[in-house]
Amino acid sequence: MEAFISSARRKRSAVVVGLDPDPRHLPLELLERVRERALTEAGAVREFCLGILEAAGPEAAAVKLQLAYFECLGPEGMGVYKDLIAACDALELPTIADAKRGDVGHVAAAYAGAHLSVYGATGVTVNPYMGADAVEPFLDEARRLGRGGGAFVLVATSNPSAPDLQDSSTPPLYEAAARLVASLGESGASGYLDTGAVVGATRSEVGRRVREILPEALFLAPGYGAQKGDAAGVRALLDASGAGVLVNSSRGILRAFEGPVSSGDDYKSAARDAARGMREDLAAAGVRA
Amino acid sequence: MEAFISSARRKRSAVVVGLDPDPRHLPLELLERVRERALTEAGAVREFCLGILEAAGPEAAAVKLQLAYFECLGPEGMGVYKDLIAACDALELPTIADAKRGDVGHVAAAYAGAHLSVYGATGVTVNPYMGADAVEPFLDEARRLGRGGGAFVLVATSNPSAPDLQDSSTPPLYEAAARLVASLGESGASGYLDTGAVVGATRSEVGRRVREILPEALFLAPGYGAQKGDAAGVRALLDASGAGVLVNSSRGILRAFEGPVSSGDDYKSAARDAARGMREDLAAAGVRA
Repeated sequence: MEAFISSARRKRSAVVVGLDPDPRHLPLELLERVRERALTEAGAVREFCLGILEAAGPEAAAVKLQLAYFECLGPEGMGVYKDLIAACDALELPTIADAKRGDVGHVAAAYAGAHLSVYGATGVTVNPYMGADAVEPFLDEARRLGRGGGAFVLVATSNPSAPDLQDSSTPPLYEAAARLVASLGESGASGYLDTGAVVGATRSEVGRRVREILPEALFLAPGYGAQKGDAAGVRALLDASGAGVLVNSSRGILRAFEGPVSSGDDYKSAARDAARGMREDLAAAGVRA
Repeated sequence: MEAFISSARRKRSAVVVGLDPDPRHLPLELLERVRERALTEAGAVREFCLGILEAAGPEAAAVKLQLAYFECLGPEGMGVYKDLIAACDALELPTIADAKRGDVGHVAAAYAGAHLSVYGATGVTVNPYMGADAVEPFLDEARRLGRGGGAFVLVATSNPSAPDLQDSSTPPLYEAAARLVASLGESGASGYLDTGAVVGATRSEVGRRVREILPEALFLAPGYGAQKGDAAGVRALLDASGAGVLVNSSRGILRAFEGPVSSGDDYKSAARDAARGMREDLAAAGVRA
């Protein structure tokens, strides 16, 4: 995870800008051009996301791309996903493919090749339901590439039904997932493992327990903003040095423009202000980058 | 799952042909044309899979497409995925997008739209780690489309490290996942729920326990052939009527040609023979379609 750690330190930011571009929630000007067939839907998503990167990129440590919103645009959407990773590379922003893939070893290896090599993301989110087989090929590929990337394994998520499976047994599933991360990760120069954990910022007690099991892992915390996570929720996830958490906001930045003023280029300034405000909010709460 | 049930009954087959086309394991003739740049790698995969469908399709109840092998070919690979679903439709073979997606509600809805509507698969595999939120949008989309499809939820998988998380707690994770399937599924005209379960054919005791919890669910059983599952393993998964299981074979059919004779069109006859042998093997073991 060295690429993420060094970017966060250089930018003094724990902010991850989440690109979850719902095609129904684009600025009016872009929707209009789609309606007039001057742009395809995928083309509008590309332009929107490039504007977000230009505006909010300077405030961010990294960018997370939610695969579902590119997949739902068909093959052309996957071209946009590829273009956006290239744009992030040009801005020196490491990328997380939020793919949550999880499958048997040879299939996981194909997914790892797809997202880390063919599409070129720095890191990727992985679902551990199928055990070590499903995670290791992503680590193997990241280590082979040597770009300081790695895998963030789903541990404790921030959605309302997360407890359905994650808290329904003894010991809870999130503990088993955290132990899997601990057993697979290798330490890098920064002291952090190359295997991180996805831990929501909405359940502080669970977060503290996961941090006990994983003192040296980088956490990716979704749920800031739209999902009601806040800086206080993030504090529960910090490591002994007061750092070790990347905090993602997607809708809070992408849809910041959806107020009374929502035309033209305003979505960019709204996104920049939202990302800057989030960065300051986290810093004020003592979240170190 | 009415589309799968009626196809299995009509074809008198419980066989699912798994399209997991590893581009390193194509017939020599196709690899040669890729080397000469007469075909792209994605084009070779398309041609190979169309040949498999032509040869093994008549023996099959359904086709399962493993997304990883299309994703690793870049955007062009997703075009092949789409073309193959259309080819299955023309052959009246219902399709399962083996995507194993699992994410929060609005993201799951985007994935459901992608695989069931944009790409047009009949069913999709889903990972339940994040709970009901991650599964329901797929069921909503399948019900809206009304094509007799649904979602197969990962319950007990057939890979070596499956027990890492699935058997590491009390009650085991696969029981919680099976109960989630029971709570979300709705019965169709055939009596089967529209929410199925992925249950490996390699662990009979676990399979019997899952069947107790889910007497009315259609199971998708991977692991036949290459992963050492066999017809006896499938028997443990059958419902009270001796049916209710679709059995997938991928490498056993796709790579049947990799013997001493492996050139030209032989891969088609090898695939047809493998699928036919599997269908007869299952029937002889008392697995009803």
